[in-house]
Amino acid sequence: MTPEEFREHGKRVVDWIADYLASIESRPVRSQAKPGDVRAALPEHPPEEGEPFDAVLADLDRAILPGLTHWQHPSFFAYFPANASGPAVLGDLLSSGLGVQGMVWATSPACTELESLVVDWFAELLGLPAHFRTDSRGGGVIQDTASSASLVAMLAALRRAGGQGQRRTVYVSSQTHSSLEKAGRIAGLADGDVRAVDVDEHTLELDPGQLDRLIAEDLAAGAVPAMVCATVGTTSTTAIDPVRRIGEVCRARGVWLHVDAAYAGVSAVCPELRWINDGVAEYADSYVTNPHKWLLTNFDCSVLWLADRAPMIEALSILPEYLRNSASSSGEVIDYRDWQIPLGRRFRALKLWSVLRYYGARGLREHVRGGIALAGEFAELVAADSRFELREHHPFGLVCFRPLWPGLSTVDANAATLALLERLNDSGELYLSHTKVGEHVLLRMAIGAPTTEARHVRAAWTAIQEHLDFA
Amino acid sequence: MTPEEFREHGKRVVDWIADYLASIESRPVRSQAKPGDVRAALPEHPPEEGEPFDAVLADLDRAILPGLTHWQHPSFFAYFPANASGPAVLGDLLSSGLGVQGMVWATSPACTELESLVVDWFAELLGLPAHFRTDSRGGGVIQDTASSASLVAMLAALRRAGGQGQRRTVYVSSQTHSSLEKAGRIAGLADGDVRAVDVDEHTLELDPGQLDRLIAEDLAAGAVPAMVCATVGTTSTTAIDPVRRIGEVCRARGVWLHVDAAYAGVSAVCPELRWINDGVAEYADSYVTNPHKWLLTNFDCSVLWLADRAPMIEALSILPEYLRNSASSSGEVIDYRDWQIPLGRRFRALKLWSVLRYYGARGLREHVRGGIALAGEFAELVAADSRFELREHHPFGLVCFRPLWPGLSTVDANAATLALLERLNDSGELYLSHTKVGEHVLLRMAIGAPTTEARHVRAAWTAIQEHLDFA
Repeated sequence: MTPEEFREHGKRVVDWIADYLASIESRPVRSQAKPGDVRAALPEHPPEEGEPFDAVLADLDRAILPGLTHWQHPSFFAYFPANASGPAVLGDLLSSGLGVQGMVWATSPACTELESLVVDWFAELLGLPAHFRTDSRGGGVIQDTASSASLVAMLAALRRAGGQGQRRTVYVSSQTHSSLEKAGRIAGLADGDVRAVDVDEHTLELDPGQLDRLIAEDLAAGAVPAMVCATVGTTSTTAIDPVRRIGEVCRARGVWLHVDAAYAGVSAVCPELRWINDGVAEYADSYVTNPHKWLLTNFDCSVLWLADRAPMIEALSILPEYLRNSASSSGEVIDYRDWQIPLGRRFRALKLWSVLRYYGARGLREHVRGGIALAGEFAELVAADSRFELREHHPFGLVCFRPLWPGLSTVDANAATLALLERLNDSGELYLSHTKVGEHVLLRMAIGAPTTEARHVRAAWTAIQEHLDFA
Repeated sequence: MTPEEFREHGKRVVDWIADYLASIESRPVRSQAKPGDVRAALPEHPPEEGEPFDAVLADLDRAILPGLTHWQHPSFFAYFPANASGPAVLGDLLSSGLGVQGMVWATSPACTELESLVVDWFAELLGLPAHFRTDSRGGGVIQDTASSASLVAMLAALRRAGGQGQRRTVYVSSQTHSSLEKAGRIAGLADGDVRAVDVDEHTLELDPGQLDRLIAEDLAAGAVPAMVCATVGTTSTTAIDPVRRIGEVCRARGVWLHVDAAYAGVSAVCPELRWINDGVAEYADSYVTNPHKWLLTNFDCSVLWLADRAPMIEALSILPEYLRNSASSSGEVIDYRDWQIPLGRRFRALKLWSVLRYYGARGLREHVRGGIALAGEFAELVAADSRFELREHHPFGLVCFRPLWPGLSTVDANAATLALLERLNDSGELYLSHTKVGEHVLLRMAIGAPTTEARHVRAAWTAIQEHLDFA
């Protein structure tokens, strides 16, 4: 495809996306496809001869769209948002079009230097400490996901802790994201050595006292405690672990503190929400938050910061001859390949840079505040209906709640809640997900798409009420 | 940014990329920036107020372009190619614009089903065995890089081998990509347990006899041999390990065989190159190749196949409540989150689908054959100049060679070769990289960009000759 053909087809693709976004509300939020539908609509074998690009666009309409769950739909309230935005998509397009590979500084200096700059900008916007800046001993890096970022943090923590060949332990809670258990498995920890610390049964916050006791027990048994993961905004209910008190335990015990703020961390662009990071500046060895969830930057863009990059680089750096170069040898540059699991890397900084510039700090704050306000409005609607129980404390965009189902046992009530969820999602009007707290299944209403307005939230509540009436 | 604003700015970005690609030859291939140059050209702090998107494009020209090494330049001959192409970039743009997240089937069925389809198509195009297809016990998946794919394969192999808590070993050669050693570290293997098998000093192929002896030794010492990595087209010189003979050893010893064909595997779209995979059908437990290197698909797109997906899923699957859904419980669908390190995933299949359709099997073969033909032409030029030594066997697009530097010691000759390399790269006319074989530094000329023509290869050779004359 020549540059001129790219110009022509590219504009058609831009039009296609603009039309898609403009008409997204007319589509069912969750795909109504059955397993195998999409594949059955496409040829079984690859083409021998090339086809015009328009044939791809035609099949997109015919075969792919019916199989999509529309994450950018204003009535998508499941999981957490996966915000996209025009400037992010265009930043990503620039990355694809430039086609550079930033594994080391020398393979495209701008890829590394813009990334260092934007993660420093972003740390400033969130009020994170100066020792997370790339001109300090620490620094920031863009990863694909918080899962990968937490794995990198764990590998750095294990490196710092030493004790290879001994039993090494990591501490989470029942509310910690499953990626931490997965990271422990990947890193070769024995089953059970990712230890679950108790949580407060009401707030679901990790108990620092029990953490300290578990660490002491493990130390007494000869283990090497390597890392604690505290969460700011858990996936299930956006609970906030007491980072400061956990940090005090970590400091006293010499254990790495990783803070997983994948969803909620970006909200600290608003000064009134900086309290969520209390203790981070003093105690966190690493911190991750995802602009690709709630900050208008399309997937994938997760930012990991470290207070000291050295253990990570010791854990991940291997230098074969074919990657040696004078810039790396000089020690004057960052080679981000040593800050991540893969070797190769996209120019992801372009999309975050586009977003931070296009919206500015003010625009980002408005976006976050807008989501929180809508969540507050939704919570009031739930609280005003005695057939529902609202889960209190919803500091961000997520509201958890459940129908009370008077007269039903807990088991039957849970089944009824899940059946209600299926009916709602089958309707195509909105998409919710669920979680379980204690014995109860709760519905999760996660608000935060840039296109979600009060009318979508109110319509969702009406649909929930109507489907409950119907039950 | 509204859909209409996206339409307007999007077309400007498409124009910008088309202009960039059309004028790329006028730029120095390797960035001439010094450490810190790019960052110094940009504001130290993020903007408080939003800026127009055009300001981003203006800074791209002013501050970013001078800091780019142009991987899509027709005279980029360093490392391996990182092909981009119009249909791939547009497929990626569609992925960004749709903004869906395919962590499980239910979160966008088309994301999973199109991926299964295109990896099956791709296996067919490469002549890979039917048991790599997703409708078998095995299956394929798109990863970000071969590094991650090889890590996933290693985790599956470790799972199958069992023996957690015992010493577990993995076998590579001195020519194996560094990502395998990195994967071993990540997976918690002890230093030294990624064992380097000898290679033939001429061909650099892994020695199956010594592999068998090492495995026997390790077994006798109580270790659990878990995986062997054979490479089809090593990074240094594109050597091809004897997969069949290695496979026989693996089969006899019950050890997982992973085949890393990251660069060269895609060339099997040409039937006359299928010999490179001799033994794969019979013996390989996993196989990886990267469309994002030499097959016109922009980074990131690496395809991993497995003969049996079960050990991988056992190694990587964790199911928290908030990801449970009826489709997953039915067992009728693939949830690709269990096939990779991260949880979230982009709709990467769109770009590979676009490429396979736009070029067709015929177009892909022409592209690969064109690169090989140019490499052959370049090799003839080197062979005809008695001041150079050509490294024989260059079955793909990479040619390795060195100036002979008569009268210089090996150490001085190597220094002179590296100095020549620096001068060439400083010239901006072309970009080469280097490797070391035995005592000798070799220059690596990797041909394979879709825009590279015979005139670029001849001009590169002329530049090399001229800079040698000047030395």
